[in-house]
Amino acid sequence: MANSKFEYVKSFEVEDRLMPSTWIVIRIDGCHFHRFSEVHEFDKPNDEQALNLMNSCAVSVVEEFPDIVFSYGVSDEYSFVMKKTTKFYQRRASKILSLTVSLFSSAYVMKWKEFFPQKELKYPPYFDGRVVCYPSTEILRDYLAWRQVDCHINNQYNTCFWMLVKSGKSKNEAQDILKGTLTQEKNELLFQQFNINYNMLPAIFRKGSCVFRAKVEEITKLTDDGDPVKRYRKKVIVDHCDIIGPSFWNEHPDILGK
Amino acid sequence: MANSKFEYVKSFEVEDRLMPSTWIVIRIDGCHFHRFSEVHEFDKPNDEQALNLMNSCAVSVVEEFPDIVFSYGVSDEYSFVMKKTTKFYQRRASKILSLTVSLFSSAYVMKWKEFFPQKELKYPPYFDGRVVCYPSTEILRDYLAWRQVDCHINNQYNTCFWMLVKSGKSKNEAQDILKGTLTQEKNELLFQQFNINYNMLPAIFRKGSCVFRAKVEEITKLTDDGDPVKRYRKKVIVDHCDIIGPSFWNEHPDILGK
Amino acid sequence: MANSKFEYVKSFEVEDRLMPSTWIVIRIDGCHFHRFSEVHEFDKPNDEQALNLMNSCAVSVVEEFPDIVFSYGVSDEYSFVMKKTTKFYQRRASKILSLTVSLFSSAYVMKWKEFFPQKELKYPPYFDGRVVCYPSTEILRDYLAWRQVDCHINNQYNTCFWMLVKSGKSKNEAQDILKGTLTQEKNELLFQQFNINYNMLPAIFRKGSCVFRAKVEEITKLTDDGDPVKRYRKKVIVDHCDIIGPSFWNEHPDILGK
Amino acid sequence: MANSKFEYVKSFEVEDRLMPSTWIVIRIDGCHFHRFSEVHEFDKPNDEQALNLMNSCAVSVVEEFPDIVFSYGVSDEYSFVMKKTTKFYQRRASKILSLTVSLFSSAYVMKWKEFFPQKELKYPPYFDGRVVCYPSTEILRDYLAWRQVDCHINNQYNTCFWMLVKSGKSKNEAQDILKGTLTQEKNELLFQQFNINYNMLPAIFRKGSCVFRAKVEEITKLTDDGDPVKRYRKKVIVDHCDIIGPSFWNEHPDILGK
Repeated sequence: MANSKFEYVKSFEVEDRLMPSTWIVIRIDGCHFHRFSEVHEFDKPNDEQALNLMNSCAVSVVEEFPDIVFSYGVSDEYSFVMKKTTKFYQRRASKILSLTVSLFSSAYVMKWKEFFPQKELKYPPYFDGRVVCYPSTEILRDYLAWRQVDCHINNQYNTCFWMLVKSGKSKNEAQDILKGTLTQEKNELLFQQFNINYNMLPAIFRKGSCVFRAKVEEITKLTDDGDPVKRYRKKVIVDHCDIIGPSFWNEHPDILGK
Repeated sequence: MANSKFEYVKSFEVEDRLMPSTWIVIRIDGCHFHRFSEVHEFDKPNDEQALNLMNSCAVSVVEEFPDIVFSYGVSDEYSFVMKKTTKFYQRRASKILSLTVSLFSSAYVMKWKEFFPQKELKYPPYFDGRVVCYPSTEILRDYLAWRQVDCHINNQYNTCFWMLVKSGKSKNEAQDILKGTLTQEKNELLFQQFNINYNMLPAIFRKGSCVFRAKVEEITKLTDDGDPVKRYRKKVIVDHCDIIGPSFWNEHPDILGK
Repeated sequence: MANSKFEYVKSFEVEDRLMPSTWIVIRIDGCHFHRFSEVHEFDKPNDEQALNLMNSCAVSVVEEFPDIVFSYGVSDEYSFVMKKTTKFYQRRASKILSLTVSLFSSAYVMKWKEFFPQKELKYPPYFDGRVVCYPSTEILRDYLAWRQVDCHINNQYNTCFWMLVKSGKSKNEAQDILKGTLTQEKNELLFQQFNINYNMLPAIFRKGSCVFRAKVEEITKLTDDGDPVKRYRKKVIVDHCDIIGPSFWNEHPDILGK
Repeated sequence: MANSKFEYVKSFEVEDRLMPSTWIVIRIDGCHFHRFSEVHEFDKPNDEQALNLMNSCAVSVVEEFPDIVFSYGVSDEYSFVMKKTTKFYQRRASKILSLTVSLFSSAYVMKWKEFFPQKELKYPPYFDGRVVCYPSTEILRDYLAWRQVDCHINNQYNTCFWMLVKSGKSKNEAQDILKGTLTQEKNELLFQQFNINYNMLPAIFRKGSCVFRAKVEEITKLTDDGDPVKRYRKKVIVDHCDIIGPSFWNEHPDILGK
């Protein structure tokens, strides 16, 4: 029973190699997470444990796929950056996309109990994803800046919105109050009405999360005299830094290379 | 802090709508499942519980995405067929691919305990995926036949291989014995050496699994006289039928339509 | 001086094979032909010689590329239909597109003198083009119907417009008169004001032009008795038939096949 | 007779925008030009008039499409480079490809008489084409170097081959003699057997042709004293320079920009 008679169907598969020498970004995004966050009673405007769970999944992805050099997450979305020179699965878009979103989803369910020991996962969450290429490091950095500015805009709005709602406004009223307000006005609203200094809120809410490999110092053992023996190794870490300006990139020249 | 300065990066996203009026097949495949099945001590050549878990995930996917009209699974792979006329996410390939593989992965981890109550899931499994379009029902049926023939060829080989190994041959010896054998010879080997009638093996191993909506009869309540009140409703079921010949499709004309 | 150092640049070329088993349509369209037709003083609303030139170029294309089974032209555009099973240049879109538009353009210039012996070609005309696939014969026929309906709509409008202009109206006045008129009203305008029965206008204007292979009878020689010896052979012909209804296709079942 | 019923066929057209911020190269190539050059009795190994005709067509293309910043031709092929930032037809690949190859073909036929006043053009020549994007200036320069190295390799081989054939060898003998020879050996063969110093051959044969805009000095009029009034303007010129090394690019920093 040879299979050759039917094998012609393989010819309908499409080659989808991404342009060589370009940065590959895989962005995944929680699907119907508005409902998911309600069903699972996430804190508003930000649920720190839900964010920590997202970050932990991103760490798993970055550890599993060494060609991912940086990733950035905010809310229920995460962007993974593969290095320009990657040959991962010959740069086939569908492979890269499916593997990333699949591992992230799988890790999310697996780690749920670790971050929500008291909450049952009611149904399997899932994510959509897309792949985008960027031809230069400048544009890639603009992409990451775009996501971080978005994080800021959304977080500031949501912080105001939920403070108003928690203080007794209806959701519609809160929306009306915020309509057309500028950044500075929102900060003042928070400070005057709720005594909140926006800039003192946790960085994870204001800046989102960066996941990348960094040199960390480790004490591997003690000498006979009791002195620590240190070594440096690369470790995937989570941080909440500004990635819009140049400082972070200057301090971590290895991440995107020259 | 307007975001418009960076929004140009969105223009690098690629439109990836699939050709209208074509069948869309999403095929997912366990990544590194050779190792995964060893670490989790799956039975060889087939682990019935592992297959049942796969099928249960497929049922979840078919229930969640109503435009999937049929799906077929074998080993650690599953193919999902979306109807020709689907407008699901405007037929965007990356959306369709990522949502399907993500939900499947998520369901796999979530349902693990149900199928392997005694086995701990050691690490998050993941799947790759691809999307292929087929312009006619004939070619789509050839695609499904291709997968089922593949199921048969692999299962017959693997059944022989593992029987030989369990009987004391080394893996290399088993390979050498099977090299170049025909279907009929493999069946004879199974029968004469191991008293196995290949055709009597469970259909789930020989035919793989079909997941689709079928009319099922339900007793909804009893009349005052105690007579059952039946009704018919569509339900997603798992079956292990032959999908190469015309019978199945003639008996289920609704699935692929005229 | 080996070239291998630079050959990596070839890896940036993209595979662009069109889906197998689908009809391939290449549509080309005169670029800036509004100006071209003014510079070369084409008759308005239709220049029969310009149409004949277009048709002659289409014949050249159909003769050169045997996998083109039908083509349809109107005004300065032409659509070429390649058969579903074509393997022409492995169905690479850019090859198919560029060869077709290149030969058409080249033929256009070369044949100019034959159709406009008194007019000098002032500058090289050029065409844009696109390639579209259609998964079924029904949809392909709808495509061709779409172009022919468009021919009708434009021709009827243009006939009215230019009759009004030639009768002394300004272009703006003519536009205003025609704004919002229905098919029937345009026909009445032509008949009452200009004594033109639209349906008696030449079919080439109303129906556009079809180019395809047809069996034609030929007298190859005479017998000794002076009787003609006929044979049938396939020849590329130009016709101006209705391709919206089924008659044409029923009469020429070979063109699109069963 | 509304056209809306059929307009759905437009939805089968595919968006084919090329990645923003990348160099776009359109390379066209004579189709069946081996035969074309024989039928039209081109000189071997190089027909200077045929090359001049190609160059003149390239000048027309560069003049017509201002976003083409550089083009390079050799034998019957030409590469056109569109600037990274071009928005020409929204960077749609099929538009860019078809317009370029169409104008080139059209110009080729139109200018034939100018370059071959004694030779009749026997049939319409045509070209295939492709579009490739390059993400950085370095890689674009490698692309151009690749074409020029290819020009050198082919020209040196062809010069030897045709000298041998003209000296009485058969084509097979000539092939055998050249099989496996290195650059240096070919140069010696030319010098010792035919007294040809390869490096003294015309640059148009050895280097191919570059077409680009350059500042040229013009005398626009004379002053009353009879002194020339000069001005500089950009003009499309043809040159035969080395584009592998950095000198040309350093001397023309405007072409590719910083």
